[in-house]
Amino acid sequence: MGKFTGYAAHDPSGVLKQISYNPGPLEPDDVEIDVINCGLCHSDISMVKNDWHITDYPIIPGHEVIGTISDCGEQALAHGLKIGQNVGLGWFAGSCLHCHTCLSGHHNLCADAEQTIVGRHGGFADKVRCKWEWAIPLPNELDLKSAGPLFCGGITVFNPIIISNVKPTDKVGVIGIGGLGHLAIQFLNKWGCEVTAFTSTGAKADEARSLGAHHIINSRSDAEIEAAAGQFDFILSTVNVPLNWKGYINALKPKGKLHNVGAVMEPLPVESFDLIMGERSVGGSSLGPPATNMDMIDFCMRHDIKPVIETFNMNEINDAIAHLEASKARYRIVLEN
Amino acid sequence: MGKFTGYAAHDPSGVLKQISYNPGPLEPDDVEIDVINCGLCHSDISMVKNDWHITDYPIIPGHEVIGTISDCGEQALAHGLKIGQNVGLGWFAGSCLHCHTCLSGHHNLCADAEQTIVGRHGGFADKVRCKWEWAIPLPNELDLKSAGPLFCGGITVFNPIIISNVKPTDKVGVIGIGGLGHLAIQFLNKWGCEVTAFTSTGAKADEARSLGAHHIINSRSDAEIEAAAGQFDFILSTVNVPLNWKGYINALKPKGKLHNVGAVMEPLPVESFDLIMGERSVGGSSLGPPATNMDMIDFCMRHDIKPVIETFNMNEINDAIAHLEASKARYRIVLEN
Repeated sequence: MGKFTGYAAHDPSGVLKQISYNPGPLEPDDVEIDVINCGLCHSDISMVKNDWHITDYPIIPGHEVIGTISDCGEQALAHGLKIGQNVGLGWFAGSCLHCHTCLSGHHNLCADAEQTIVGRHGGFADKVRCKWEWAIPLPNELDLKSAGPLFCGGITVFNPIIISNVKPTDKVGVIGIGGLGHLAIQFLNKWGCEVTAFTSTGAKADEARSLGAHHIINSRSDAEIEAAAGQFDFILSTVNVPLNWKGYINALKPKGKLHNVGAVMEPLPVESFDLIMGERSVGGSSLGPPATNMDMIDFCMRHDIKPVIETFNMNEINDAIAHLEASKARYRIVLEN
Repeated sequence: MGKFTGYAAHDPSGVLKQISYNPGPLEPDDVEIDVINCGLCHSDISMVKNDWHITDYPIIPGHEVIGTISDCGEQALAHGLKIGQNVGLGWFAGSCLHCHTCLSGHHNLCADAEQTIVGRHGGFADKVRCKWEWAIPLPNELDLKSAGPLFCGGITVFNPIIISNVKPTDKVGVIGIGGLGHLAIQFLNKWGCEVTAFTSTGAKADEARSLGAHHIINSRSDAEIEAAAGQFDFILSTVNVPLNWKGYINALKPKGKLHNVGAVMEPLPVESFDLIMGERSVGGSSLGPPATNMDMIDFCMRHDIKPVIETFNMNEINDAIAHLEASKARYRIVLEN
């Protein structure tokens, strides 16, 4: 068995250096993937810098993997995967499969879920492994070059549409037009909704329109948000900074939902009266289960939805990180082997 | 046309005195009700004392009316109501019927809804009026003596079960065992759920069990709430005081919902991370639409669910208010003509 080679952080400085490691014996549930490319996500940088105090160094980040199965354990084979097949791999690399949550189809909420770059090495490498249930089969027609970001950024904004029961007749808003928001706009436009993009970056307005936004509101203008009172069935916030939450809640129609996928550190001050008087709710979610990943890929194929990407060679990973940290990425970076 | 006579507050002192008033001509949509009895709700006291700064004095409160139709406008007759029929009347006395919200069946969320004791007189009187859509027909077999509190306290906790899609397999909690909570426990027990009552009043534990609670947790014990982490699909809060909201949110299972029907004045500090990591949500609601009132009455009949009441004569209304304000009501007061 050969070693895997990838780009690892050795400390919180943010600089990655090539290392090799021995992945150990292939377990029956394991899938081994030859990495074609891998998207770069803010969460990779959070792990590199140990922002969440869960990083064990060295760590090879990377959790938006597109690749080809190079080896399969017997259980992986028994569950339909094949050597030579193209798959996607996101934030999760394993779930217990037997808890109530997994058996209900919500593997992303499994308390014992294994995370691709927590306590193990990820996809900025020549190879990566995962358990079979998180190797999502890819159709031959999918554009492999751009698909990686779907498996973290994409599913993070696709799953809320499913679990919040967003309907094609809904008027919806997306706060923040970045790696996540630019996909949310595409999804919701093709879902059939009337889509408003909330952005504080004027330069992104035209791009948001080209991605499918019907309207633009300045996300930091209290006056514009107030003028939108009672207009939205669903607002998806992709940002991780405090906003005028009361204004956004009041921008919801009766029965409307504000859904957070960006982890804002300061608690949201939610006034019970604002919820009570309109049957409104505030929710959140992280990623999505394998079946929803499959539905997302199918939806993307049917509607020609693709992440808008910039590409770097895998050995340019430190440049790519600097580009992302400078908020220059439009909208998602993919590193290619 | 005769005058109506009832008990009115003339200032925020909280003392009610008998007055007569001319209700004006009966409009085509109007139903006139001979009041048999009327429940006393905390909201009546809030209106009497002008807590919400919307009270016009004099005001006759009372919005949990059981009565018999004594007169009907032609539109009320055309929509199936009959003189001599028993009906219930709650917080709402009219909705526009033609807005999108009304046409969707959510008349309680109508922006132009008329409220029984806001800008008009309510049910602590010999007669009261409403529009036909809010005169809820009562089956002959219903116990009229105790039914009044269903039309505000009852629907306030029944509607959340419907809109939150609570399932009989769910594990649920009810915070606060008073006029609302004692009904919520009964509803949720008969709904098929495993029910935990959260109360800070030790003396209510046995009563909560007799009403259908399977477990009791001290609502003010951080240790007990922490020990319940991850256990509940649905928690209904009926209280209007700040609690350990983070503890209650973390007591939710993945996909669990915390639902508020008590208007807490201080904003709930909701951490987005606590929502995101478990697909949890925080919602709220107020009352419920006519169709859900009908479903509630049907459910109460089938399962012999009744408000636990204490009765006063209508002319003892000031004593009744003092009893409620002293937190002595077990669990809901009904004033009888």
